[in-house]
Amino acid sequence: MLDDYKSKPPPIRKRRRTGQSRQRDRVVTAAPAYVKRKIPFYEFLNEEGLVKLEEQAEWLIQEVGIEFREDPKALEIWKQAGADIKGTRVRLDKGLARSLCKTAPTEFTQVSRNPEKSVNIGGNSQVFAPVYGPPFIRDMEQGRRYGTMEDFENLVKIVSQLPSLHHSGLVVVEPCDLPVSIRHLDMVYAHMKYGDKPHLGAITEKSRAQDSVDMARILHGEEFMENNCVIMGNVNSNSPLVVDRVVTEAVQVYCGANQGLIIAPFILGGAMGPVTTAACIAQAFAEAMMVGAFTQLVRPGSPFILGNFLSSMSLKSGAPTFGMPEPVMSNMIIGQLARRLGVPLRCGGSLTASKLPDAQAAYESADSMLSTALGGANFVLHAAGWLEGGLCTGYEKLVMDADRLGSYQVMLSGLALDENALARDAYAEVEPGGHFLGCSHTMSNYQTAYYDAKMSDNDNVEKWQEDGSKDSQQRAYERWNQLLNDYQITPLDQAKDEELKAYIAKRKEDIPDAWY
Amino acid sequence: MLDDYKSKPPPIRKRRRTGQSRQRDRVVTAAPAYVKRKIPFYEFLNEEGLVKLEEQAEWLIQEVGIEFREDPKALEIWKQAGADIKGTRVRLDKGLARSLCKTAPTEFTQVSRNPEKSVNIGGNSQVFAPVYGPPFIRDMEQGRRYGTMEDFENLVKIVSQLPSLHHSGLVVVEPCDLPVSIRHLDMVYAHMKYGDKPHLGAITEKSRAQDSVDMARILHGEEFMENNCVIMGNVNSNSPLVVDRVVTEAVQVYCGANQGLIIAPFILGGAMGPVTTAACIAQAFAEAMMVGAFTQLVRPGSPFILGNFLSSMSLKSGAPTFGMPEPVMSNMIIGQLARRLGVPLRCGGSLTASKLPDAQAAYESADSMLSTALGGANFVLHAAGWLEGGLCTGYEKLVMDADRLGSYQVMLSGLALDENALARDAYAEVEPGGHFLGCSHTMSNYQTAYYDAKMSDNDNVEKWQEDGSKDSQQRAYERWNQLLNDYQITPLDQAKDEELKAYIAKRKEDIPDAWY
Repeated sequence: MLDDYKSKPPPIRKRRRTGQSRQRDRVVTAAPAYVKRKIPFYEFLNEEGLVKLEEQAEWLIQEVGIEFREDPKALEIWKQAGADIKGTRVRLDKGLARSLCKTAPTEFTQVSRNPEKSVNIGGNSQVFAPVYGPPFIRDMEQGRRYGTMEDFENLVKIVSQLPSLHHSGLVVVEPCDLPVSIRHLDMVYAHMKYGDKPHLGAITEKSRAQDSVDMARILHGEEFMENNCVIMGNVNSNSPLVVDRVVTEAVQVYCGANQGLIIAPFILGGAMGPVTTAACIAQAFAEAMMVGAFTQLVRPGSPFILGNFLSSMSLKSGAPTFGMPEPVMSNMIIGQLARRLGVPLRCGGSLTASKLPDAQAAYESADSMLSTALGGANFVLHAAGWLEGGLCTGYEKLVMDADRLGSYQVMLSGLALDENALARDAYAEVEPGGHFLGCSHTMSNYQTAYYDAKMSDNDNVEKWQEDGSKDSQQRAYERWNQLLNDYQITPLDQAKDEELKAYIAKRKEDIPDAWY
Repeated sequence: MLDDYKSKPPPIRKRRRTGQSRQRDRVVTAAPAYVKRKIPFYEFLNEEGLVKLEEQAEWLIQEVGIEFREDPKALEIWKQAGADIKGTRVRLDKGLARSLCKTAPTEFTQVSRNPEKSVNIGGNSQVFAPVYGPPFIRDMEQGRRYGTMEDFENLVKIVSQLPSLHHSGLVVVEPCDLPVSIRHLDMVYAHMKYGDKPHLGAITEKSRAQDSVDMARILHGEEFMENNCVIMGNVNSNSPLVVDRVVTEAVQVYCGANQGLIIAPFILGGAMGPVTTAACIAQAFAEAMMVGAFTQLVRPGSPFILGNFLSSMSLKSGAPTFGMPEPVMSNMIIGQLARRLGVPLRCGGSLTASKLPDAQAAYESADSMLSTALGGANFVLHAAGWLEGGLCTGYEKLVMDADRLGSYQVMLSGLALDENALARDAYAEVEPGGHFLGCSHTMSNYQTAYYDAKMSDNDNVEKWQEDGSKDSQQRAYERWNQLLNDYQITPLDQAKDEELKAYIAKRKEDIPDAWY
C-alpha cells in the first residue's frame, strides 16, 4: 500500500537499524516536523451524498445569503466581484464561491524560525497544534484557576518538547493576569521566544492582528514574508451565516500580507445551526467557503484553511457535547468536501466536555481525534490539552493527548509490507509452537516495531502497585513537570529578540491598558 | 449515502417522532438486537497489499504448514481432504483452505431464547459482546479481587440491561469460587437464566463443550438445533501455527451439532508471531483460515467466525500493549481479508493494559474499539469491561465502555441526508445571526438528533461541583448499581429451568470436583 504514495521513508520514527550489534545504541533522531499521511482517506459518504451537501451549501449562498456585517469595505469587495448585495446580505450565483477558491493553494508551507520545524499544510500532510482559547487552567497540584502568563509560557515550553505537536498554536491558555489590550503582544512573543515551532497570531481586533504580522516581519524579514507564510490567523464566522468585522479585517491583515488564514465556523447544532448534522455540515461548509472566497478577493493566492467545528448538544441541558458520533462523522465528511474543493482542512481535536482528565475526557478525545486523523485534517487545532468544552486547558491532559497523537501518527504512516515486514526468514528460524522472542528478525526489528507510548503503564498489577498504583493523571503530572525541567530549544537570535522587545515596549506605551 | 444500503429504518434509536404535540411523550422502544451497518467499510490496504498478505498466508499453509496436535482424528480428517501430512504437520496446496471455507455461511443467525434478542452475524451486521476470561474483578468499592459466581451473575444481569451489548458472551469473569471441573455448568446456566441474549458455551475440554451443547438442546429443542445456531464456542489456536486438541474437539462438538465456532488466534507480536505487524496479520489469517477449513470438513455449512487478536509489545518490558496503532491498523485490515474470504469476522474490543478505568484505559479502549467498528467486525468479544490486558473485569469499565459502544453504533448507522436532515425550512424560520433553539425543526427533531450518552457529564463546572465533582469512575459505579437494582428480563420458562437444573445436578454428581 505504501507504493501508492511513492515510498519516501516513513516520516515517523526514523530510527530503523538493521545490524544486531547496535541494538542497545538507540539513536533518537529529530522527529519529523509534520506527518506525511500514507494511508487512504476514508470515503464515508458516496458521491450522491457529497453532491447533496455541496448543493445545500450552494443553496445557502445563493438563496439565503451570508451577512457581512460591520465592514463596508468587505461589501465593496464583494460588489466588485459581482455579488448580489442587499443591505449587508451577500448572495452569490451558484458556483462563484467555489470558483473563487480555486486560486488558493492546495498546500503550502508555514515557515518557522527554526527551519527544521517548518510545516507543510494541505494534501497528504497533517499538522497538529495544541488547544486554543481557554481562560482557565487545571493541573493536579493547584486545581482549576484562571490562566496566567506563567502558565502560558510553561505550556509553550511543554509543547515545544512534544514531538507529536508540530505547531505551537496561539492561546494555549488566556493569560488573564495581563490586560486584554496588550496581552496579544506577550503571547506572540512567548511563542517566538520559548518555542521554535510555527505559531498563530492574534485576530480579536485589527490592530492586534497587525501587531502579530509586524512582529513576524521583525522575525522573518519583510521580503521573505512577501513570498512565504510565516504566521496565520484563526477566525470563526458568527454562525449562523454571519461574518463580522473581526473576520474580514483579519483577512485583510493576514491575507493582505500573503499570510495564512484559518476560517472555522463553530456550530452548536440546534443553536447556531439546525439540530440535524447534515444541515450543520453544509452550513459550516458554506460559511467557510464564503470566507475562503473572500480571502482570494483580498489577495489571490494567499493561503487559507477551510475549517469546521461542529458540536452536538446534550438532550438534558442543551450544553455542547464532544466526542459524540455526529461530530465524529462530520470530521470524516468535511474532509471529503475540503478535498473536492481543493483546499487544506482544519477540523476536530482532542475534544471533551469533561472537567477532569478522566475516562470521559479520554474516550471523547480519542473518538474525536481518531476520526480527525482518519478524516485527513491538514491542520488540527485543539489536538492536545482541551478540557471542559474548551473552557479549561489541562496540563496533564496536554501530555496525555500528545502521547495518543503519536499513536495516530504511526497509523497515518501506514503498514510496512516489504520483505522485512513479512518476515519469512523468521519462520525458518522459529518452528510452529516455538517463540519469536530471541530470533534474529525480532532482535533486528524490536526497537522500531511498535509505537512507544510514554503515558501507558503496561506493567503487571504487582509491579504497578510497587510503583505506587499511579493512575494516568498522576503519571501525566510527573511527565509534564519533567518536560518543563528538561526544556531546551533552538534559541531565538539575540538581535531579533532585542528588536521584538523594543517593538513590544513601544506598543505598550501607545496602547492603554484595557480589560476588554 | 443511506441509499447504498437499501434504506431500512435506522436500527438505532427507533424513536423518531414528527408531530410537535408529542414531543415530551418520549417513547423508548426496544433497542435493536444488533447493528445493521450503513456506512462503507474503510479500505485501509489496497489490492496489492491485500494480495501480499493473502499470499503470505498461503505460503505459511503450503510451505511451513500448521501443526494439528494431540488429536489423531483431526489428522485423519485432513488426510481424507488431501492434505500433505508429516507427523502432526499439515500442509495444503495453495488455495485449498480458502476453497474449503466456501461452504461456510457468509452470515447466519444466532437464535436466543428470547427471539427478539436473536442476532445476525456477518455481512453488514455487527454484534457486540462483553469481556471474556478474566480471573479477577474490580469495582470502586471493593477494589481488585478474584471473581466469584456472585460477580458472574451480577455481570450477566448488567449486560442484559445494556442495549449496546447484543450478546451475553460467556466468561464475563471466572467464578473462581467454584471448582473448574463443574464451573462451566453454572456459567452456561447463568446466561440462560439471568440473561435473555444469545451466549457462548464452554470449550476448555470436550465434555464441557458437550455439556454446553446439551444444555442448549434442553433450552431450544433437538430438532430446532439441527437447523439453527443457538450456541457458539470461542477458541484460540496455539500460535505460532499450532492447533491443539481443545480446538479440534470443540470444532467436532459445536460444528458437529451445526452450532457456531469462533476461531481467534491470539498473537503477541515478537512472541507468538514475528515482531512485524504485516507478518502477524498474515499468520493469524492463515491459522484462522485453516481452522475454518477444518470446521467445513467436520460439517460443511456449519457457521464459523474468523477471528483475530493481535497485540503489540512494550519495548521496555515485553508486556503486551493494547490500543496501539499496530493492532488498530490490523483491525481494519483483517476486516478486508475476512470479507474477501466471505466469512464473518471477529476482532478488536475495548482493550487496555491499564489497571484502572482511568484515562489510559479509555484512550486505549476507544482507539481499539473505534477501529474495530470501522473495520466491520461482525462479532466483537471484549467490547466492554476489559482491564489489565484481559486479566481483570471492571464493573465500572463495563458500563463506561457500553456507553461508548452506543456512540459507535450511531456512527455505524450513517448520516441521514433526507429533506428533514437538510432542514431548508429551518432557514426560512431563522434569519442569519438568529438562533435555532426554539424553531419548529429543532422542536420536532431534538429528541432524536444526537446520541444520548449516559456516562458523559456535560454540565458546566459550577453545576458539576454542586453535584459532588464526580469523575467518570464514580458515575459509572452509580450506574451499574442502578442497573443491577432495576434489572429485569424475559424470564426463563419454568419447565425448562427445572430440566436444566436437573441436568446440572446429575452432571455434578458424575464429575469430581477439580481445580484444573
